[in-house]
Amino acid sequence: MKVAVIFGSVSDKPVMKKAADVLRAFEIACSAHILSAHRVPELLGETIKTLENDGIEVIIAGAGLAAALPGTIASQTTVPVIGVPIAAGGLGGLDALLSMVQMPKPIPVAAVGVDNAANAAYLAVEILAVKYPELKEKLRAYRKKMKTDFEHENKEVTL
Amino acid sequence: MKVAVIFGSVSDKPVMKKAADVLRAFEIACSAHILSAHRVPELLGETIKTLENDGIEVIIAGAGLAAALPGTIASQTTVPVIGVPIAAGGLGGLDALLSMVQMPKPIPVAAVGVDNAANAAYLAVEILAVKYPELKEKLRAYRKKMKTDFEHENKEVTL
Amino acid sequence: MKVAVIFGSVSDKPVMKKAADVLRAFEIACSAHILSAHRVPELLGETIKTLENDGIEVIIAGAGLAAALPGTIASQTTVPVIGVPIAAGGLGGLDALLSMVQMPKPIPVAAVGVDNAANAAYLAVEILAVKYPELKEKLRAYRKKMKTDFEHENKEVTL
Amino acid sequence: MKVAVIFGSVSDKPVMKKAADVLRAFEIACSAHILSAHRVPELLGETIKTLENDGIEVIIAGAGLAAALPGTIASQTTVPVIGVPIAAGGLGGLDALLSMVQMPKPIPVAAVGVDNAANAAYLAVEILAVKYPELKEKLRAYRKKMKTDFEHENKEVTL
Amino acid sequence: MKVAVIFGSVSDKPVMKKAADVLRAFEIACSAHILSAHRVPELLGETIKTLENDGIEVIIAGAGLAAALPGTIASQTTVPVIGVPIAAGGLGGLDALLSMVQMPKPIPVAAVGVDNAANAAYLAVEILAVKYPELKEKLRAYRKKMKTDFEHENKEVTL
Amino acid sequence: MKVAVIFGSVSDKPVMKKAADVLRAFEIACSAHILSAHRVPELLGETIKTLENDGIEVIIAGAGLAAALPGTIASQTTVPVIGVPIAAGGLGGLDALLSMVQMPKPIPVAAVGVDNAANAAYLAVEILAVKYPELKEKLRAYRKKMKTDFEHENKEVTL
Amino acid sequence: MKVAVIFGSVSDKPVMKKAADVLRAFEIACSAHILSAHRVPELLGETIKTLENDGIEVIIAGAGLAAALPGTIASQTTVPVIGVPIAAGGLGGLDALLSMVQMPKPIPVAAVGVDNAANAAYLAVEILAVKYPELKEKLRAYRKKMKTDFEHENKEVTL
Amino acid sequence: MKVAVIFGSVSDKPVMKKAADVLRAFEIACSAHILSAHRVPELLGETIKTLENDGIEVIIAGAGLAAALPGTIASQTTVPVIGVPIAAGGLGGLDALLSMVQMPKPIPVAAVGVDNAANAAYLAVEILAVKYPELKEKLRAYRKKMKTDFEHENKEVTL
Repeated sequence: MKVAVIFGSVSDKPVMKKAADVLRAFEIACSAHILSAHRVPELLGETIKTLENDGIEVIIAGAGLAAALPGTIASQTTVPVIGVPIAAGGLGGLDALLSMVQMPKPIPVAAVGVDNAANAAYLAVEILAVKYPELKEKLRAYRKKMKTDFEHENKEVTL
Repeated sequence: MKVAVIFGSVSDKPVMKKAADVLRAFEIACSAHILSAHRVPELLGETIKTLENDGIEVIIAGAGLAAALPGTIASQTTVPVIGVPIAAGGLGGLDALLSMVQMPKPIPVAAVGVDNAANAAYLAVEILAVKYPELKEKLRAYRKKMKTDFEHENKEVTL
Repeated sequence: MKVAVIFGSVSDKPVMKKAADVLRAFEIACSAHILSAHRVPELLGETIKTLENDGIEVIIAGAGLAAALPGTIASQTTVPVIGVPIAAGGLGGLDALLSMVQMPKPIPVAAVGVDNAANAAYLAVEILAVKYPELKEKLRAYRKKMKTDFEHENKEVTL
Repeated sequence: MKVAVIFGSVSDKPVMKKAADVLRAFEIACSAHILSAHRVPELLGETIKTLENDGIEVIIAGAGLAAALPGTIASQTTVPVIGVPIAAGGLGGLDALLSMVQMPKPIPVAAVGVDNAANAAYLAVEILAVKYPELKEKLRAYRKKMKTDFEHENKEVTL
Repeated sequence: MKVAVIFGSVSDKPVMKKAADVLRAFEIACSAHILSAHRVPELLGETIKTLENDGIEVIIAGAGLAAALPGTIASQTTVPVIGVPIAAGGLGGLDALLSMVQMPKPIPVAAVGVDNAANAAYLAVEILAVKYPELKEKLRAYRKKMKTDFEHENKEVTL
Repeated sequence: MKVAVIFGSVSDKPVMKKAADVLRAFEIACSAHILSAHRVPELLGETIKTLENDGIEVIIAGAGLAAALPGTIASQTTVPVIGVPIAAGGLGGLDALLSMVQMPKPIPVAAVGVDNAANAAYLAVEILAVKYPELKEKLRAYRKKMKTDFEHENKEVTL
Repeated sequence: MKVAVIFGSVSDKPVMKKAADVLRAFEIACSAHILSAHRVPELLGETIKTLENDGIEVIIAGAGLAAALPGTIASQTTVPVIGVPIAAGGLGGLDALLSMVQMPKPIPVAAVGVDNAANAAYLAVEILAVKYPELKEKLRAYRKKMKTDFEHENKEVTL
Repeated sequence: MKVAVIFGSVSDKPVMKKAADVLRAFEIACSAHILSAHRVPELLGETIKTLENDGIEVIIAGAGLAAALPGTIASQTTVPVIGVPIAAGGLGGLDALLSMVQMPKPIPVAAVGVDNAANAAYLAVEILAVKYPELKEKLRAYRKKMKTDFEHENKEVTL
């Protein structure tokens, strides 16, 4: 099983790295690509075809501003595309969120929260877990551990 | 394979029906539920457990205003949850969109566009297609037909 | 009489501490809890039950982003729930405000201003003062002192 | 026990009537007042004093646009004030919501959702229930009935 | 000289017709195309190539929601692309405006006002007038006439 | 002739000082007051009465968040009230702007730009100049000098 | 004494008529003009000069969208300019409000609420009343009557 | 061939310099001007006339807040005007964007993204390339190089 993480600019890397970190924690192989719907549309198209031929199963795409990247990818594949709106400039990422979530049917993008690449990766794991039962187990174990950690935090809190 | 379509109020039904229509077009069985994170949290919790036991594979949840339904479902299952923000009141659905997309990690909701339940269903099909190759074929055929239809429209257009 | 202050993450603590400070100034006992509607829904449910059994009278809940915490609490108790939207990320807290104020009937959340946990505590005191006349007196004395302080500031101002 | 429902204009009456309807369902006496922070500040001040002398316990105030009414009332009493932002004009009630929720400490307004006067009344009942145990019982019975009704809706839904 | 008017859906036709009307008034030949960046990316690509081979000089592209059409076109040609954000759904066209104006360098889209396809056409005429002096004359004559008409309106106004 | 500059908190002083600076440049006497519609409504009311008795001719009022100060003043006097919305918190001053500009008739507030206390003072000068011809002269001289200064800047600019 | 009411299009007339109605109620002569900063800048400039020569004392200017009219007028006169943002299109008048209120110093526009031309006229009356004591009396009488009317409404209200 | 770069204040210079840098890279002569629609309208008008007499072919105008500069220029020339909204204050440039894009017909402004003066220059080059074939070649070469650079970045990326 394979996930591709695609983003539009070197400046998006610190945000998108969190997706790769989560995927690694679930031992899911992922490839990383800097690609732009607007700047290298041909290379983007070729990469999508290569990824599809390699059996890619989920694509995570992060972009800011007029964030066309996830939608453009979604228009060229039927693999689920998860969009990460990235805050850039003064509008707090609202421009990127709207640019990727308001897609025409039948070309959906699965948007997660602004700058929340980690959640994009968790969503990718959930999608893969539909097919791979061992990931379902890992997700449950992960959530269980998260709850235990949270309970510790909860016990120690004072105001 | 199974999809559940959950929404918060009878008034959301016309929007959410479009999801069921798309799923039917792909011959995917789906159940329908009116449930509310805020009004019947226990029934929602029980329903999620029943759905999980029945092997549900994707959940589509539509809600308006402080649209907690998709996130509350996502907090109780590792099945992928797709959120449909529904426009209600004067804020154009922006309240519902933000309420469901800005989720904390590791509990993602896959948000689609405002009132775009059809796209939620297409996304569900894409997610299921990761596991079921026959859906991948149907999606490709569907997109091909869409393109042919679009080309006809394109040929006839005048201004 | 008792108030519980609940918030979703350690990062919310500096904001929510202001609520505890105000409550202490009114000699109102309060408990503090880190809990999440999305991450530990079961622990949240158990805590609400315990608080209700202990006779909790007002709950203050702070959260950011898709701030479901106050609404989820409100769905499980008839104790008044005061919501503090916390600014996180680039949208200035508007996401959190809308996520908690736009609640469906009959499950209200009493929202106060963004990051204004102090006002949540003053509101809690006002609510308790409906029942406890001594708090009414303290509130009046407090406002009187505030006015005197303000008058001093007013006398010294120059531009 | 007593609740006052105050609003700024005859045009707000259809929205605010829902608050009175809910209060009546809980057999809570309420008075109704058209008053304006900006147009009749003296009459507003006198009314607040009269209400306080009559032992008013909660005030619900609805207003649109630069919705100063709830805050102005809150500045003149320590009785809890619940604000109902009313949508008027093209901004969907966002102007009214921000005008009443962003209050300076220590003068809180408890804001509910746009046009959601019913929820203001439910919140008033919850606040009064802190003091009056019989209201707590009624609230629980009401929620129980709501859940039963919801379950019936849920059983009959198809898409 | 030639202008192409491209839009994403039959429902955009009434808005985009205003562009064609203006172009006709300036005797500028224009072609009309229904095309979608997301639904028929290949046909869009082919059309852009054909248009370029035919010596197209300006492209006007209208789209709503996640309005990727103008940007996708701009990424495949160096012909100036004018974007018309079209209001669709509850966000008043702000989503479409941000989706097309916030482009990455060096791929600009020249955005005009929401639903203002007429202004897109006037801008196209201005751009063509840089090259074709007779259009400059027509523009000046047109503005002169507009001013005369306006002066008549101005003379008759009463309140 | 007299202008009063009123603001809600010591933290607003750096913004509001710019109003006093402009007034001084026009040799217009002004008084400064820290007052709050919500915290010291009685003192505010008394101050307005005193100012009216002293023949105050224009009032400038700056406030942030639920910026009720200018509107509350306007409700108690027929002297023109100029409102300065002050940016505080994460909403960039949009909350303060809407809170003061969306006033009910017949109680206007003359809003200027966010944090633009200087422009409030220039507006005050323009209002006073309707009555005092010497101010009209000063305004014209001031604008003339501004233009000369601007022309110098313009001459030296390079990119 | 004289007021000019200027607006940008015949479609703005129903909104702006309310300003003329208020001015007539105060027996203040006003002239009406359809003028546009963008479409007839020369005629606008000439009109401003004529108005100044005629001793105009306040200008009310209403406009929608990129509402440059009030600011352009303000740049050419030191007479106080009151701006009425007019809602047009899907953004609820927020575009027009920001376009006229966010003026650079020292060229203020006095903005009133969206579509609130009546308040623009009341503000004009207040500004003129600085100079003309009889208007001050009329304003006080008007407010007194408004309060009496409001009190009648208040007495009859039921919910 | 000639381009003029006009902006409203010295503080806009760092943003607008990027336009000049791009133009220089294409060996396009450009002049720079600090001018203001509101502060020096006469000098602006004279400059536009001079520029037109000198055969100016495209004008780039950057401004913040109530960004009237591009529209005012467009109202006085039929040369294409490209507007650069500049972020200033707390609204992230949304005020400037709306102030320049929502123009009335037939006076368009070609808006680019917030603070994106580089894209304004690329758009200017594209417009000039309609007339000057050698610029078309340069644009294609430039994009080709951009793609090669991007491909290098793409090859080296890891997460």
